[in-house]
Amino acid sequence: MHKRESGLRARSLAIAPIGVIHTLFKHTQGTPIQGVASNGTEGVVELLPDLIPGLRDLEGFDRLWLIYQFDRASDVQLVVRPYLDTTERGVFATRSPVRPNHIGISVVRLLHIEQNCLYIADVDMLDGTPLLDIKPYVPAFDSFDQSRAGWLNGKSGSEVLADDRFELGSADSE
Amino acid sequence: MHKRESGLRARSLAIAPIGVIHTLFKHTQGTPIQGVASNGTEGVVELLPDLIPGLRDLEGFDRLWLIYQFDRASDVQLVVRPYLDTTERGVFATRSPVRPNHIGISVVRLLHIEQNCLYIADVDMLDGTPLLDIKPYVPAFDSFDQSRAGWLNGKSGSEVLADDRFELGSADSE
Repeated sequence: MHKRESGLRARSLAIAPIGVIHTLFKHTQGTPIQGVASNGTEGVVELLPDLIPGLRDLEGFDRLWLIYQFDRASDVQLVVRPYLDTTERGVFATRSPVRPNHIGISVVRLLHIEQNCLYIADVDMLDGTPLLDIKPYVPAFDSFDQSRAGWLNGKSGSEVLADDRFELGSADSE
Repeated sequence: MHKRESGLRARSLAIAPIGVIHTLFKHTQGTPIQGVASNGTEGVVELLPDLIPGLRDLEGFDRLWLIYQFDRASDVQLVVRPYLDTTERGVFATRSPVRPNHIGISVVRLLHIEQNCLYIADVDMLDGTPLLDIKPYVPAFDSFDQSRAGWLNGKSGSEVLADDRFELGSADSE
């Protein structure tokens, strides 16, 4: 395999939001840290109307991946103290927003679609989060029940809500 | 929930690769369409060396999410004929690379880490694919065995390899 790391810094990728995720969570504090922790909380994905043809056949899926921007994340931290732990962890071993590229992924349940609006449940995003992509959740590709989860083993996150430690302008980030 | 779609087109997000994924797949044709279809094929993630502190604790996880750029995808198509089907589908109901933002996600198995190199298996990316993020695979967040998968139900992809239909400069894309 040919190694070519040089020049990576120079290349960058232009990404534009394809919609916005509306939720009841206005601030990081109190927001579920993962969809499974949200106890069914509902939200709405508002897709750009000219992308509606891309939604064909999506209603056959129980769940979706939303790929989105952590647009209220503060700076980048390589080592973080995550919500589910008291120990500092490498950011790539967490789902923390303060990663080098502020991209989040979450599984949500799809309830129904009306034109360019997707009604969803199990949301854990802040209101107004920019949406980057929608993909179908496919158990054959995505589901690995027995995968060992390091420091997160046995921590479901279902009782844990976020605080503001990673939010722009919070005391912790300054 | 407040609706605010206007202005979305204007905002865009600067994303820079954090590394590169080395695999044996030089062209789309013959590349597995998902990690589970790759029969354990190995690869190497080469992370930018200054990001090594972010890898702490990652070796406790059996699997990782790689978030990457479909850098050889051709244009955007809202309706596609995917590898696993003969019918046209909305692009958001597929994992096709020709989506509005050329972002891919795949689960890979983590074998071991040496400095800035992650040795992985079950790869389905082209050699040289720009890496955008690494996240731990956490069954409590990510695993939903019984999720209904629409037109993909019962199609595991394990016998299917890609052709060049979505590659830059291929006959199909011109």
